Amino acid sequence: KKSFRVVVLPGDGIGPEVVGEAVRVLEVISAASQDVEIKLEPHDFGGCAIDSTGEPLPPSTLKACQEADAILMGSIGGPKWGVNSKVRPEQGLLALRKALGLYANIRPANFASDSLLANSPLKPSVAEGVNIIVVRELIGGVYFGARQELGAGTDADTAWDTMIYSVPEVQRITRVAGQIALQANPPLPIHSIDKANVLASSRLWRKVVTETLQAEYPQLALDHHFVDSASMFIVASPKKLNGVILTENLFGDILSDESSVIPGSLGLLPSASLAGAPSVADATSPDFKPTAGLYEPIHGSAPDIAGRGIANPVGTILSAAMLLRYSLGLEKYAQAIEGAVRKALDTKTTGGFELRTADLGGSVSTKELGDKIVEIL
Amino acid sequence: KKSFRVVVLPGDGIGPEVVGEAVRVLEVISAASQDVEIKLEPHDFGGCAIDSTGEPLPPSTLKACQEADAILMGSIGGPKWGVNSKVRPEQGLLALRKALGLYANIRPANFASDSLLANSPLKPSVAEGVNIIVVRELIGGVYFGARQELGAGTDADTAWDTMIYSVPEVQRITRVAGQIALQANPPLPIHSIDKANVLASSRLWRKVVTETLQAEYPQLALDHHFVDSASMFIVASPKKLNGVILTENLFGDILSDESSVIPGSLGLLPSASLAGAPSVADATSPDFKPTAGLYEPIHGSAPDIAGRGIANPVGTILSAAMLLRYSLGLEKYAQAIEGAVRKALDTKTTGGFELRTADLGGSVSTKELGDKIVEIL
Ligand SMILES: CC(C)[C@H](C(=O)O)[C@@H](O)C(=O)O
Ligand SMILES: CC(C)[C@H](C(=O)O)[C@@H](O)C(=O)O
Repeated sequence: KKSFRVVVLPGDGIGPEVVGEAVRVLEVISAASQDVEIKLEPHDFGGCAIDSTGEPLPPSTLKACQEADAILMGSIGGPKWGVNSKVRPEQGLLALRKALGLYANIRPANFASDSLLANSPLKPSVAEGVNIIVVRELIGGVYFGARQELGAGTDADTAWDTMIYSVPEVQRITRVAGQIALQANPPLPIHSIDKANVLASSRLWRKVVTETLQAEYPQLALDHHFVDSASMFIVASPKKLNGVILTENLFGDILSDESSVIPGSLGLLPSASLAGAPSVADATSPDFKPTAGLYEPIHGSAPDIAGRGIANPVGTILSAAMLLRYSLGLEKYAQAIEGAVRKALDTKTTGGFELRTADLGGSVSTKELGDKIVEIL
Repeated sequence: KKSFRVVVLPGDGIGPEVVGEAVRVLEVISAASQDVEIKLEPHDFGGCAIDSTGEPLPPSTLKACQEADAILMGSIGGPKWGVNSKVRPEQGLLALRKALGLYANIRPANFASDSLLANSPLKPSVAEGVNIIVVRELIGGVYFGARQELGAGTDADTAWDTMIYSVPEVQRITRVAGQIALQANPPLPIHSIDKANVLASSRLWRKVVTETLQAEYPQLALDHHFVDSASMFIVASPKKLNGVILTENLFGDILSDESSVIPGSLGLLPSASLAGAPSVADATSPDFKPTAGLYEPIHGSAPDIAGRGIANPVGTILSAAMLLRYSLGLEKYAQAIEGAVRKALDTKTTGGFELRTADLGGSVSTKELGDKIVEIL
């Protein structure tokens, strides 16, 4: 039996509640599997770590993450550690991404279940059939370039940040997008987003994306959109961007959040942040090596509903499925979880259990939904 | 009779067609008015200027714009002068904005007529009642900071741009937002958008916006959102952002385009780019001074339908209304135009003429719609 080590970072707010259900799902898989064993190891991270140690990413947590095969996170942050605090939970997240080299953020924005279409703010005719995967560069660009705070420099009246990209940084994220596009059958088109009519870093981006795909993935369709135009398409005709949206850190932050409201509840959507191209080999093959990755639902810590047991655990459970797929090479278990989630959410008329947590207008609890998914599995 | 000089830049693609109708509207106003005369003066700008002079903003056009009281523009650009050309129409637009100091871009995203709600990609319940005005800083930030192209620097492998803001730049755009908010009755709330959890320039932004409004517009409600979160709200619950969205150049580029699809057709929406706070005094008052400004519809040059006489002229006609309001102090004529547009678009059951150009699923021509608006006026 192969053994994998997964660090669990429950975090703040509803984090521990939703992570609790995803952990149960992983335990069920681990217990049932003939091939693999998944060892789960919880650590403090985010606001709760600030409270207990003074820093959002304590050295012991960082060390555990560095040694782990993959990381499952809940959510971090809350009003207690707001924008004006000196030490903030997000700093821990940015530091963790950088320390582990998690350069590839992958966020699918598609319907966990078609029965949820009615929850989209978009008209059914616009939202139906949307199938977008955002691949965002996560440790470059204006997030990590040199910057100067107001009052800190010689020109005391200004503040600045640097949006910077190197050729290898763009090459490696392009390869991840290429690989994700190829995993689908038929392969997905790639929509690269930039602001090349204004920015030098975007001109580099467009050039490197084009050359890398032409040389290494010539079979993939590629087009380019300006970020302003893409932000319109995502609302007005999102299906035109079906496929892989490939973009830099800041644009990806904005566009992935924008696309994530199409499915109707943020509570449904998972994300992965990888330190390399996703595994294609199966966990049981002799040459298999796990890809380090951090997996988290896209929603925040929702302090307003924390502790009430009503948060939607689906985003975190689907994040656990992505963890099995991309880090641990366990595609079949990933699909099993996704199938179970779909069955729990599908309407009764289509053979599902039609369970609805509060975010979807229902009254099913976090635990009831988790129970049902575990039961189906 | 006061006389105003308005430079007209028809531009490329459908630009000349839509500008033609707005010019007729301004001529009608000029002829009918007892108080003012509007002198219109066409100039080459954009792709057509590249073709005739080699540059998008020829010196004669720039000079005319500098001497004018206001500028009305159509649209520029097209495949002929694409991203890979050395000289591009957008360069002229950026240069013109900078040369005239047009730091305040104002883009209302509200319904020209409620009868068009059905055209929104959002559900009627989500789109109804949306009333957002985006105030975007237009000549600062990453658009105009220092930058380095790939291959140009000592580190040949990278390219970068600088997102930079100074305190006075943020103060002046904040005052414009404050003034726009105060012009409404009751005054509008201000939603300032930044990425202060990551960027130094955003922390400056948030601080200066907060202090300026507290000191000079204490009666206005103010809140702050991160740009990723705002991009979700605009789709999921845009009414939560009703009021004035105040933001920096790049975020404003993205969010104003995103919000502009809510009303269902880009063809409907106007924009203003001002070199100062909008006029409040009436044109006829002795101390009146026009505010320099460039007015243009938000849509592009739409080369695919250019020359066919089917483009929607409403965005440009409403831009002319904004020109009268913000640059020339002619609020009553601005309202007359807006009323005429509404009547032309309103459904027959609500007493309108229900004219629909192709973008709204109809077959009314550019000229027919212009004719009707002129006739109503
Ligand atoms: C918390 C914040 C720094 C972070 C980001 O902007 O990357 C978040 O918005 C995200 O997308 O994961
Ligand atoms: C053409 C381009 C440079 C311009 C911008 O990004 O400012 C356009 O998108 C706009 O918003 O007016």
